[in-house]
This record gives sequence, C-alpha cells and structure tokens, in this order.
Amino acid sequence: MHDASAKGPHTSAAEFNRKITAYPWFGTWLGVKATEITARGATVHLDIRPEFLRHGGTVSGPIVMAVADVAMYAAIMGAVANGERAVTSDMTMHFMRRPQGEKLTGEARILRQGKRSVVCAVDVYVEGQGESVCHVVGTYALPSA
Amino acid sequence: MHDASAKGPHTSAAEFNRKITAYPWFGTWLGVKATEITARGATVHLDIRPEFLRHGGTVSGPIVMAVADVAMYAAIMGAVANGERAVTSDMTMHFMRRPQGEKLTGEARILRQGKRSVVCAVDVYVEGQGESVCHVVGTYALPSA
Amino acid sequence: MHDASAKGPHTSAAEFNRKITAYPWFGTWLGVKATEITARGATVHLDIRPEFLRHGGTVSGPIVMAVADVAMYAAIMGAVANGERAVTSDMTMHFMRRPQGEKLTGEARILRQGKRSVVCAVDVYVEGQGESVCHVVGTYALPSA
Amino acid sequence: MHDASAKGPHTSAAEFNRKITAYPWFGTWLGVKATEITARGATVHLDIRPEFLRHGGTVSGPIVMAVADVAMYAAIMGAVANGERAVTSDMTMHFMRRPQGEKLTGEARILRQGKRSVVCAVDVYVEGQGESVCHVVGTYALPSA
Repeated sequence: MHDASAKGPHTSAAEFNRKITAYPWFGTWLGVKATEITARGATVHLDIRPEFLRHGGTVSGPIVMAVADVAMYAAIMGAVANGERAVTSDMTMHFMRRPQGEKLTGEARILRQGKRSVVCAVDVYVEGQGESVCHVVGTYALPSA
Repeated sequence: MHDASAKGPHTSAAEFNRKITAYPWFGTWLGVKATEITARGATVHLDIRPEFLRHGGTVSGPIVMAVADVAMYAAIMGAVANGERAVTSDMTMHFMRRPQGEKLTGEARILRQGKRSVVCAVDVYVEGQGESVCHVVGTYALPSA
Repeated sequence: MHDASAKGPHTSAAEFNRKITAYPWFGTWLGVKATEITARGATVHLDIRPEFLRHGGTVSGPIVMAVADVAMYAAIMGAVANGERAVTSDMTMHFMRRPQGEKLTGEARILRQGKRSVVCAVDVYVEGQGESVCHVVGTYALPSA
Repeated sequence: MHDASAKGPHTSAAEFNRKITAYPWFGTWLGVKATEITARGATVHLDIRPEFLRHGGTVSGPIVMAVADVAMYAAIMGAVANGERAVTSDMTMHFMRRPQGEKLTGEARILRQGKRSVVCAVDVYVEGQGESVCHVVGTYALPSA
C-alpha cells in the first residue's frame, strides 16, 4: 500500500484529447474532452446531445458513466507514467439527481495511488447546478512494469 | 421490504425492443436487443463493432456497462407493471476478464423486488467464453404509484 | 428526487450516544461515539483495542465498516426527523491504507437527502494520519411516513 | 487477467477455524465458523446472539458484513496458497431483506482468481429462509509473491 510521491502531471489535457481520438466511441462519437489534468485529478466536459437522453429528457445512465470513466482515465494518465494501459477493475455509481441540462462535467480526484492500482472518486455535475448528480468510486489496475 | 409475488412478465422481448428504439443512443446507435424477458430476469445481446473497442482491442468499459444497464432495465420491465419509468439509483461493476470477441450477452436476474425499488445482478458474457467478464449489482428506484 | 431543505440537526451527539447504548454491539461492546452531528453530516470516534486487530496489526475490515456505518447513521439521524428507523440498503467500501493506530475517526456527509432515501459518503481516518484509510458510499432507506 | 488453474483447496474448514481463533474479534467474540471450504468457495455460519441485534430485532449491518467478509476470506484461503495475507480492497453490499432469525449462513464463491487479486460474491442467508438477505461482491488483494 505504498503511495507514490506526487509528480507530474504525466499528460496534459491537450495531449489526452489528441490521444483519445483513437477511441472512436468516447473520443469521437461521444465527444468528451478534458479541460484540466493535474497529478491528483482531472476535469472533463461533455456537451449533451438529444441522442443521449432517455425517458423524461434526462441523460441516459451509461452516458453519465462514460463521463465518469473518462474523467478517471484522464486523472490516472495524469498521475502515473504508464496510465494509458490502465484498465477499470471496479466502479460504483450512485445516481442522485436527474442529469438534465446542456453540459456534463466530471471531476475526478485520486484517493489512493499505489504501485498496482489507483482508486479515484468522481462527481458528475450539470452545468449551472451546484450539486453532484452522480458520485462514483472506482479502481483502475495498472499494468505490471 | 415486501416482495411482490411473481407475476408476468409485464413485457416481452419483442415489445421491449420496439420501445427502446425511442432511445436513440442505446436502442438505435448501440443496437442492444433483448432476446428473453421473464418475470425474474432478462437476456440481452450486443454485436460488437470496431467503434466500441479501446486500447488492446477490448470492449470499452461504458459499452459493457450499457449492456448491463439495458439487461437490468429489461428485467425490471418484465418484473413490474410500471417498470418503464424506473431509474437507476446505484450500480456496481466488477470487470473480471477482457471483453474480447464478437458478441456480448447480458443476463440479469432480480434479487429483490420491493414496492419502491428492485435489486438486480447481471453477468456479462462474451459469446463462446464460459466465464462472466463483468459482474454487476444495481438498484432501480420505482416511480411512486 | 426532491431534496429536503436543510434544517436541524434533529439530534445531538450527546443524545445519539445515549440512544445507541441500547444497541449492545456497537454502542456498548464496540464503543463508538459521535462527537459532532449537523444537518449535513456527522463525526464519530473509536478507540482501537487489541481485539479489533487482524494479521499484521491492522484493524479488521468489519470494524472499519462499523465505524462508517455508525457515522452514516449519526448523519441520517441529524438530517431527518425519523432517522432512527432508517436501514442500510447498500454500502460500498474502498480500503485504501492500512488502518494502524490508536483511534479511528469516521466523517460522514450527506450527498443527497430524498424523501425515501439518503445517500452518504464517509471517510475513515486514523488519528494523526492525513489521508483516508477507507472511502465509503452508502444508501439508507427511510421509513414510509 | 490470468486465471490460475483450480487446485486445492489450500485449507480445510477445521484448519481455518483453528487459525481464526488468533483473531479475537471475529474468531472468538463473534464466533463465526466455516463448515466447508473448496477451491472455488466457502460456507460459514454464525449463531445470532441478542447483542448482534439493532432496532426492530434485526441483525446489525456490520455483523452481516462480518459474516460476508469471513466467508470471502475462507474462500480465498481455499483458493490460493498465500491467502492468509490477503486484504480486502473493496466490498459492496446490497441489503435486501431483514436478517431476522437464529443463524446466518454466508456462501462465498470465487468469480475471478488472478495473480494479484481475487473477486468473490457472497450471499448471506437466514436459516430456514430461501432468499438471500444480503448480496456482496468484493475484491481481495493478494500479497506480492
């Protein structure tokens, strides 16, 4: 349970956004973008399009999950040198308010950075609303060195 | 903590598939389809397309989540009369094996059916592989009568 | 998904500590005590005794869980009028650092307060250590009015 | 994500019960005992005593969690050679029915056995009742070889 000393960030928002265009579904189709990556967290944004909505005009669950997942991935690429090859091992979401609006923001922060895994929390916000619509905790497994 | 007596199912796979074409992102773009809905569970399938893949050729996490979420939603629409208006309140995923192949199957079963909420477990499989790639547990809140 | 306007708190730490002596296992045997209860959160403490330890001298998982559960329960009794009859419906724990020391502190904060349920996050700390040893998210179901 | 070939079990219920008397809180005070350990799962029992109860005569949440945690630990000690030094990294519980009765049973099964971690599911039952009162999924980190 060694915590690596904070260095970095190991990537920038611009470099991350360039890299994820190689992932057609969330980089291109979904269109989520990082705006800030530090050594301890990351912020991403998603413009809500009509095709993301479900019954009642709220954003579909897996779209909210995708925002959280990309936010964690950005945070991990900022926190560790080999973050690109990290894979999600578990993820828990609590949906708390209806995600209804024009833009989603995912704010990820690293809770624990170990040699084999990283634990992150994410809150997802709707622009202009003060309270988190979804609180997420997850673990990413890091590749063996 | 009253468990409703099992009746139904309240919808069929064909009716569910027709209804979800109204949801552009998972009904149309993603293309997940139910093949069986009973009063206690549901099975859904997704043909894997290249745009669903991430680094290393495995299916992206949120796509796996979407399969699990749609499987739960189908199970709930089978289990309760007003399931269409149910909303996910929490969801926990454990990703266990690399989802690599041509088709994903999500098998949801109802663990507890109450008046205000339903708890489900889902296992996601890759066609031709015996073991679950992702184990999911979630709660759906039912609308007030 | 209506959020009640914050009022209260509906109980004090002293009253909570008096009430939980009626629960032999966590009130008396375990000996966890609240030190602060507001309308939006609570803080509890536990003196670590040798019988709480496992292999390697760290506090056993279920003891950490109990601290988190009592912290949430205290927060809910502060936040809602009928919190005493609330029951845990789900709880997710991420254990991040070895809980080794003389005293555990659980800090709960309400993430969402609805009419039927309350979502809480808890961080558990070891006295004198800056980082959370365990991050917990859970839902309590409130009794029907 | 290599899955070790199933061998074992690496311990027996009798040996496990002898070992956990070294853990005063769950081995001695709580009194949970394994009755079966295989290479892929384990079953444990706990006699419910009045001091385990909370408001309404149901078993307190952390006692249910402890049964689940010990069941997972027994399963891991059966599945891997160095399981004794495994530590819980995450655990998610869904409480589904009131645990009211004389005896709790925890049935753990291994969902994925890797080199660095093991994922388990547990269902907790009340003797004489057919349905799970609590569904648990958790990950144990294995010590580096």
